[in-house]
Amino acid sequence: MMRSNGRSSHQLRPMNLTVNVNKYAEGSVFIEMGDTKVLCTATVDEKVPPFLKGQGKGWVTAEYSMLPRATQSRNQREAARGKLSGRTMEIQRLIGRALRSVVNLQALGERTITLDCDVIQADGGTRTTSITGSFVAMAIAINKIAQQHKLPVFPITDFLASVSVGVVGEEPLLDLNYEEDSKAKVDMNLVMTGSGAFVELQGTGEESPFTRQELDELLKLGEQGIRELIAKQKEALGPIALMIGSGQAGREA
Amino acid sequence: MMRSNGRSSHQLRPMNLTVNVNKYAEGSVFIEMGDTKVLCTATVDEKVPPFLKGQGKGWVTAEYSMLPRATQSRNQREAARGKLSGRTMEIQRLIGRALRSVVNLQALGERTITLDCDVIQADGGTRTTSITGSFVAMAIAINKIAQQHKLPVFPITDFLASVSVGVVGEEPLLDLNYEEDSKAKVDMNLVMTGSGAFVELQGTGEESPFTRQELDELLKLGEQGIRELIAKQKEALGPIALMIGSGQAGREA
Amino acid sequence: MMRSNGRSSHQLRPMNLTVNVNKYAEGSVFIEMGDTKVLCTATVDEKVPPFLKGQGKGWVTAEYSMLPRATQSRNQREAARGKLSGRTMEIQRLIGRALRSVVNLQALGERTITLDCDVIQADGGTRTTSITGSFVAMAIAINKIAQQHKLPVFPITDFLASVSVGVVGEEPLLDLNYEEDSKAKVDMNLVMTGSGAFVELQGTGEESPFTRQELDELLKLGEQGIRELIAKQKEALGPIALMIGSGQAGREA
Amino acid sequence: MMRSNGRSSHQLRPMNLTVNVNKYAEGSVFIEMGDTKVLCTATVDEKVPPFLKGQGKGWVTAEYSMLPRATQSRNQREAARGKLSGRTMEIQRLIGRALRSVVNLQALGERTITLDCDVIQADGGTRTTSITGSFVAMAIAINKIAQQHKLPVFPITDFLASVSVGVVGEEPLLDLNYEEDSKAKVDMNLVMTGSGAFVELQGTGEESPFTRQELDELLKLGEQGIRELIAKQKEALGPIALMIGSGQAGREA
Amino acid sequence: MMRSNGRSSHQLRPMNLTVNVNKYAEGSVFIEMGDTKVLCTATVDEKVPPFLKGQGKGWVTAEYSMLPRATQSRNQREAARGKLSGRTMEIQRLIGRALRSVVNLQALGERTITLDCDVIQADGGTRTTSITGSFVAMAIAINKIAQQHKLPVFPITDFLASVSVGVVGEEPLLDLNYEEDSKAKVDMNLVMTGSGAFVELQGTGEESPFTRQELDELLKLGEQGIRELIAKQKEALGPIALMIGSGQAGREA
Amino acid sequence: MMRSNGRSSHQLRPMNLTVNVNKYAEGSVFIEMGDTKVLCTATVDEKVPPFLKGQGKGWVTAEYSMLPRATQSRNQREAARGKLSGRTMEIQRLIGRALRSVVNLQALGERTITLDCDVIQADGGTRTTSITGSFVAMAIAINKIAQQHKLPVFPITDFLASVSVGVVGEEPLLDLNYEEDSKAKVDMNLVMTGSGAFVELQGTGEESPFTRQELDELLKLGEQGIRELIAKQKEALGPIALMIGSGQAGREA
Repeated sequence: MMRSNGRSSHQLRPMNLTVNVNKYAEGSVFIEMGDTKVLCTATVDEKVPPFLKGQGKGWVTAEYSMLPRATQSRNQREAARGKLSGRTMEIQRLIGRALRSVVNLQALGERTITLDCDVIQADGGTRTTSITGSFVAMAIAINKIAQQHKLPVFPITDFLASVSVGVVGEEPLLDLNYEEDSKAKVDMNLVMTGSGAFVELQGTGEESPFTRQELDELLKLGEQGIRELIAKQKEALGPIALMIGSGQAGREA
Repeated sequence: MMRSNGRSSHQLRPMNLTVNVNKYAEGSVFIEMGDTKVLCTATVDEKVPPFLKGQGKGWVTAEYSMLPRATQSRNQREAARGKLSGRTMEIQRLIGRALRSVVNLQALGERTITLDCDVIQADGGTRTTSITGSFVAMAIAINKIAQQHKLPVFPITDFLASVSVGVVGEEPLLDLNYEEDSKAKVDMNLVMTGSGAFVELQGTGEESPFTRQELDELLKLGEQGIRELIAKQKEALGPIALMIGSGQAGREA
Repeated sequence: MMRSNGRSSHQLRPMNLTVNVNKYAEGSVFIEMGDTKVLCTATVDEKVPPFLKGQGKGWVTAEYSMLPRATQSRNQREAARGKLSGRTMEIQRLIGRALRSVVNLQALGERTITLDCDVIQADGGTRTTSITGSFVAMAIAINKIAQQHKLPVFPITDFLASVSVGVVGEEPLLDLNYEEDSKAKVDMNLVMTGSGAFVELQGTGEESPFTRQELDELLKLGEQGIRELIAKQKEALGPIALMIGSGQAGREA
Repeated sequence: MMRSNGRSSHQLRPMNLTVNVNKYAEGSVFIEMGDTKVLCTATVDEKVPPFLKGQGKGWVTAEYSMLPRATQSRNQREAARGKLSGRTMEIQRLIGRALRSVVNLQALGERTITLDCDVIQADGGTRTTSITGSFVAMAIAINKIAQQHKLPVFPITDFLASVSVGVVGEEPLLDLNYEEDSKAKVDMNLVMTGSGAFVELQGTGEESPFTRQELDELLKLGEQGIRELIAKQKEALGPIALMIGSGQAGREA
Repeated sequence: MMRSNGRSSHQLRPMNLTVNVNKYAEGSVFIEMGDTKVLCTATVDEKVPPFLKGQGKGWVTAEYSMLPRATQSRNQREAARGKLSGRTMEIQRLIGRALRSVVNLQALGERTITLDCDVIQADGGTRTTSITGSFVAMAIAINKIAQQHKLPVFPITDFLASVSVGVVGEEPLLDLNYEEDSKAKVDMNLVMTGSGAFVELQGTGEESPFTRQELDELLKLGEQGIRELIAKQKEALGPIALMIGSGQAGREA
Repeated sequence: MMRSNGRSSHQLRPMNLTVNVNKYAEGSVFIEMGDTKVLCTATVDEKVPPFLKGQGKGWVTAEYSMLPRATQSRNQREAARGKLSGRTMEIQRLIGRALRSVVNLQALGERTITLDCDVIQADGGTRTTSITGSFVAMAIAINKIAQQHKLPVFPITDFLASVSVGVVGEEPLLDLNYEEDSKAKVDMNLVMTGSGAFVELQGTGEESPFTRQELDELLKLGEQGIRELIAKQKEALGPIALMIGSGQAGREA
């Protein structure tokens, strides 16, 4: 199959991470995966949700939204409709859960990190792109806390990135754009750590159930894509990258 | 690990399917998996949602709800709160998507089947139990259509069931109850067809990322559980079971 | 007039009370009046609503809901619509008010009993059936408190049941099913105590105003029906029935 | 018992009906029962709700609201809270149902009459006062239709008024003000026709169940009060009063 | 241009202020500007919104609503729609902001004054009429506080009134009624103080932008109208008027 | 007074307009006024709202939103709160009204242009910046229609821009940033056309009423700022600028 821009089946779209794009947020990243563009900001709040109060632990949560004209045709704002769609809630629950899996909430202390993922333009893979970008924004914000508060240990335990894979026609593909995604018979989102373990695995064969062999091929494609994404995250984070999973006290220098 | 009631790690809870429990619904099932009890009703509507109008295709959708005292402590009703939780929306989207994967919507014609899954009592696995039960309620309802309308072919193409698997301590377990689920470091829901293909695969390692080897063990446990559940579905459906995937015209006799 | 199943005008439908049907709730009853089936659970909460705080008094409240396919055609869920209908609010206010009339809230202490009445199948009289069933669930729950807390006196002061009466054609009937109810020109719901006093009397002649004589006949029919319902409640409650109105300290033995 | 202003137990509060107080509405009345003051407007709409379309019948419906400072302390607006309270819904359902009982919907034709009852000041009995006032506003509006459209017959079949009765201490009282109502052990609202039949009967003994004898005394008090209210309605309506129940063609002269 | 009732271009409609029309509210006024009629009540609450707590300052806020049949055709209630319209929110923000501009919040102390402006009948200028009337209701309520609490200084620093002006055809007009307003190419609302300063100036030329010269003419018309309105307010307030801007301690005598 | 970055009192912040930043929208602009950054997209819909159907006229409307972390501290999303704030509604009504004032809706034909103004970063003046940017996005989108449809005449009749002015201390300032705005005693937003006429004038002196002389000075500052903004719009629009107000048929060449 010929992919747009001559991509091969196991090739990611051109990816770009621009850090510190917001003058107020404790961490911020503008992530581009091809034509999918997401602004991720991390806000640090020196308190935790009611269910965690007094336990000495922190929390990481996320919100996700698409601008109305992020897509081919305009979508009504959820604020105007008066409620979040099921899709939005599903995605923001996923982002929060994924990020928490690599954060030592005890080490973070009684703080909440809120990741806002606002999709400026959408061309497939907005949820996976949001996770990959949010991880970087979160790392910048947590590093700021670490520099100010001498945390006992840097609270991020591993890298984390996410990518989609899918079967289009009979071919397994990495990092589907919107056109590919809408033709895919199997669609899978992977969230994995720097050490190669799975954090989330969500595969759907609504159009056509998939076999164990197809699953194995998709996992292999995804694992390779994740490795490449994490390499980009390291580059964007510079010296902060060294703190992740280091077990060092939470100070850069 | 000692499971309650002396279950082994690869043993389902006692399962019971009682069909035709509602005098009005076109299809209905009361499904019990241990102490998890769900009432599934299927409603046939001779029209389709706006986005499908005039295409000659049908639709299958689902709604999910827990009675307030289905759980250890009482939950506020979503109707009283004025909105569905993200969890509820995620679950009902999953149930609908899973069921549609084994329905030939063209053969169904311009009709909607709505599955209502009301959890009467919850002890873990309510979403997987809802899928397994809903499949049976849907089959009964579709058979009623087939008997009245001489469909070109019976619209259900394969069996479908769902089960949870997870890792508790270091041990992979089949069909987790609530207590096990709340201790699990990895939690996975599988939806599979009668022919052994995957329809949905949702694994989460929020507490602890999981390795490829753990994934393989969980999939094996799940595949076996699904086979047993489908055997029970066949028994409950009696002669209707023969129509599923038969490619026969939609009449029982 | 010929009623379905050969019932006479002053005959209740077959009635069944199954107690302790929910493993979590402090009190629970499954009540069947003919084809009307309601699950009533009682939840005890060791606190009171804000308006009662610090007064040493308890509270009894109720919520009511119909499953979407409890009726001939499917009803949209109120949770999906995002608000309770006027009918639902009217009914749950009635149930709560009725139950409170036979509870010594002072003796109950600072506790709230919440009755959830979920209509599994509806064939007329769901509000009256909910009251009759809720009373039993409440008695079981309050007895549990009494056994644990040595209340100064058992807080339930009298029995309480409810039934509908109406005029169909020219004939006054007891305990209308759905078909009768939809043809009735006068429709009345009665809530009465074990000692024969009125707690609620709601008569409506939207189709045709009713005379004083018709009112008197309906009250007579209703009084007799209530007596029979309370006899059934006593049977279902067993030894707990002896505590009601006994003025004894809140312990069974 | 000494009532405020030296009223006897069977005496109504001073009552005033001012008609045509709104320059736009098809019918309007400002009704004062002591310090309870309600503005009732009737709007005629030349169409019916969807469920009645094409049946050649009309509809009568009502909405009820209290201004925030109609009461001793300010109440939050329901528009600000974003939803109607159960009390409001219950009351507006009652007003609509009551008025429909004396309207020949067939004769009205495919029109909707909406009664808006806005409580300007509240001192007990706002729902009964709303019904009594709305009847007059509705009659004025329907008369306007009749004059323009030569209806086959005047659609209002009888007079209709409403009053509250209750037991305070041991004494049955007519037309309770707020102070009496809050001390009443039994509270009953009556809606009756000009010919003395019951349309609605809603008695509540939440504080204390009531006996058959108390019921009989309350009904007697209420019947007398209703007769006096209807006399006042006739006076306010002038020549329009002659059309009501006349069976004449829908023209005044 | 000929205005209805022979008004000249710089003439206000007949204006009437009736004070103390509500038996419960701390201040109340019924204001009529021609056929526009608004009931304004002022409620005193001995606490402030959360954002002001502990600062020793008070707050003034307003709510605005139209009765459904205040206008030519009936409007749906905002309570029934479940939300306030943008127009309503804009107006109530304006009323509150305008009133606060002449209140010394420090001198008021930790109290909230809530002005409820309910439009009984609308014929143009409801927001300006609400401001003019609310000022009087507020003054009465604040005077009541002053009489009870010996405030250090009377908290109202100046008079405040509001009027609309506009260009209809080519002619600048004062105090537009609904018919004029709907034909106006420029529409402006002015809020001014007793000393002739501007508090709010909101001009809109949606139909046709306006020149600097037109602006100057409109301001002149408005200034004159405001002076007349304030004269009426003084008359209605009687001795309370002397306290406003007096710098005296908060006691009338 | 010393302004940040050494700005003089009559100097705009550095302004930047980047056109065509969104691959899907018919028109799009990213506008920066100092640190205030707004993404404006224009969507063309080939239909009109119900109230305009069949009149042969078009419509222009706007929506406005701030990303949660556009500001110093994070704001809750309006979608999560379930409703738009009064401030948001007021702003989006203003933007739509302002843009419509320079569009010949008849010439536009039965089409709707929706402007989405999403504030990426806020530092004062977000509503005025949204108007200035939206005008450019709208012009690009309308030019696209004109090129495809040969409109009878280019529907934009004049340029339109907006700026804020205010009094800080005693000094009138042009184009306030957030810090200045929060200290201003008078705050005014101006919307003006290319020919120097006023479209909207909204001045507020909540902190301190303002005199006629202050008003005159502010208008003068604003007029000059608007001229500079319109010069920038012309530059950004290039050849499209020539069509505006040209009265030419709707084709660029």
